Amino acid sequence: MQIETPYLMFLGDVPDRLAAKTAYGIVDWRPEWCIGQIRLPGCAADLGIPDLTLDEALAKGCRTMVIGVANAGGVLPEHWVAEIVAALEAGFDVASGLHARLGAVPAIAEAAARRGRALHDVRHTDETFATGKGTKRPGRRLLAVGTDCSVGKKYTVLALEKGMRARGMDADFRATGQTGVFISGRGVAIDAVVADFISGAVEWIAPAADPKHWDLIEGQGSLYHPSFAGVSLGLLHGAQADAFVVCHEPSRTTMRGVQHPLPSIRQVIDLTIQLGSLTNPGIRPTGIAVNTQALEEDTARSLLDKLGAEYGLPATDPVRFGVDGLVDRLIAEFPETAP
Amino acid sequence: MQIETPYLMFLGDVPDRLAAKTAYGIVDWRPEWCIGQIRLPGCAADLGIPDLTLDEALAKGCRTMVIGVANAGGVLPEHWVAEIVAALEAGFDVASGLHARLGAVPAIAEAAARRGRALHDVRHTDETFATGKGTKRPGRRLLAVGTDCSVGKKYTVLALEKGMRARGMDADFRATGQTGVFISGRGVAIDAVVADFISGAVEWIAPAADPKHWDLIEGQGSLYHPSFAGVSLGLLHGAQADAFVVCHEPSRTTMRGVQHPLPSIRQVIDLTIQLGSLTNPGIRPTGIAVNTQALEEDTARSLLDKLGAEYGLPATDPVRFGVDGLVDRLIAEFPETAP
Repeated sequence: MQIETPYLMFLGDVPDRLAAKTAYGIVDWRPEWCIGQIRLPGCAADLGIPDLTLDEALAKGCRTMVIGVANAGGVLPEHWVAEIVAALEAGFDVASGLHARLGAVPAIAEAAARRGRALHDVRHTDETFATGKGTKRPGRRLLAVGTDCSVGKKYTVLALEKGMRARGMDADFRATGQTGVFISGRGVAIDAVVADFISGAVEWIAPAADPKHWDLIEGQGSLYHPSFAGVSLGLLHGAQADAFVVCHEPSRTTMRGVQHPLPSIRQVIDLTIQLGSLTNPGIRPTGIAVNTQALEEDTARSLLDKLGAEYGLPATDPVRFGVDGLVDRLIAEFPETAP
Repeated sequence: MQIETPYLMFLGDVPDRLAAKTAYGIVDWRPEWCIGQIRLPGCAADLGIPDLTLDEALAKGCRTMVIGVANAGGVLPEHWVAEIVAALEAGFDVASGLHARLGAVPAIAEAAARRGRALHDVRHTDETFATGKGTKRPGRRLLAVGTDCSVGKKYTVLALEKGMRARGMDADFRATGQTGVFISGRGVAIDAVVADFISGAVEWIAPAADPKHWDLIEGQGSLYHPSFAGVSLGLLHGAQADAFVVCHEPSRTTMRGVQHPLPSIRQVIDLTIQLGSLTNPGIRPTGIAVNTQALEEDTARSLLDKLGAEYGLPATDPVRFGVDGLVDRLIAEFPETAP
């Protein structure tokens, strides 16, 4: 799946900002791809980019209309269908993060076929994956792991991609979630892959590469999360991670959606090394990324200093304080990948 | 999904016995459900049960025609389609273990709709699962784990079900693979479930039950298998296993389909306890099941004696030497579940 860029962002008439979370994530990390937005009457979200008609967006070079919003009940509202059909008629591809498949709506399927346009459902995949082989492949890989779900893994690897490229390093973000797929224009949402093929899908997402190249792989869940640890382990084995960064959210007391307490950063480091060694005995931690949004700057800095000293690793909030320390450590540990 | 029994077994014209592996497994464990077989000209498999016409099978009470065979290339051969349509017309449900969905063939979908018959694709599921919650639920659960894939996990829990029921214990086999689903008439093949829902699907397969009740859950893969460890971990967490039996095949040198060496039984016991404790801190091993098919009886017995002494656990080949020792240990460890 390769989604053509740039994007026209379709927001429909979502009732709040949260329902457009995916769209905001895309604009945050790929502002240059997000040329304009289409909002229907009653829409309560605003990406802060120009409102465009289909014709205006086409004239500005947009190739794909992106539906980066959640809809209630999983069914495509009729007035969204009309807009999607109009976009296809105008010559756009359409990419959707909805649970419902675009092609399951006959009017959309017919319009796409008639105009020869592509429909991308990033929550689904028609790709046939092999099972993971666990065979060592060239190129370096870093995986973001976490003490929980939703602790900043995607933002950490995206910030690393930016920081490493700025230093002239050869690094690519590798998406494993739907927002990430829109941000990279390719990849597979792991939650679209059936269980037997998790590690195989990651081997496909982050294939053999130049020895100086880094794949920066978006992690999912946590090895300590009772709902998602299997996904996290399949990702770890498929990634054959050389390096990992532990992501953490210090205000969290129980793991997301369940009653289990958060593991310590130490526990996550130890278990990631123990289990990751199966497909890469050289795996090692290269940093800690903390989402300090809820903390005052002074408190945030002293927490990071404390964690850095305790674990002997660079500790930062990638969004607030940058990733220089993480990149320095990566170069020190893997000098052959220096720019 | 509840598959109506008894079964009429459809073998098509498979070129060898191996292609009908699923059908043989069903006949092994549910001979009373397998009333007859349908073989097309050229079929090289024979289940050793009567060859019946559709009308004869109907007269004998068969409710579902089971396609328990593998077909080349994943496409349903045209002459199988005709036979499947004829079965639907005659009033049978049809259940298939093929990768291709029955309903994707228009003639089959139309016949099923017209006659009001059910189509079951056990490799696919339309069930919507919740993510795993990890909350302790009543009832006891035993999980078969392994040093590798295909080391006898399904046969071990099926033999346990038989042995425990013979002693008057309350025990149910819980299928997680396609052959197991046919054998139990219900369940979900875990390889049909998308990654995020593995542990949630197992919570659904083996739900809250009477405190004296045992669910005997078919394991998949191995925590040490680089292709499938994620599946094995999701299964372990969803099962909240109180007890586990380690299954092993002594002639194996590398893990199935990959170059990795087999872990030791000790490694599997230790890692299963370590990781299983997340959702059940009381998890413990209650036996070792070895597939000794390749060994002479004397050699097999002395291997089992040696393993039993080394690990302080009952060790048996469930098919060859029965499961009495495994059941005795289970009752000793969980006396409240005694008959």
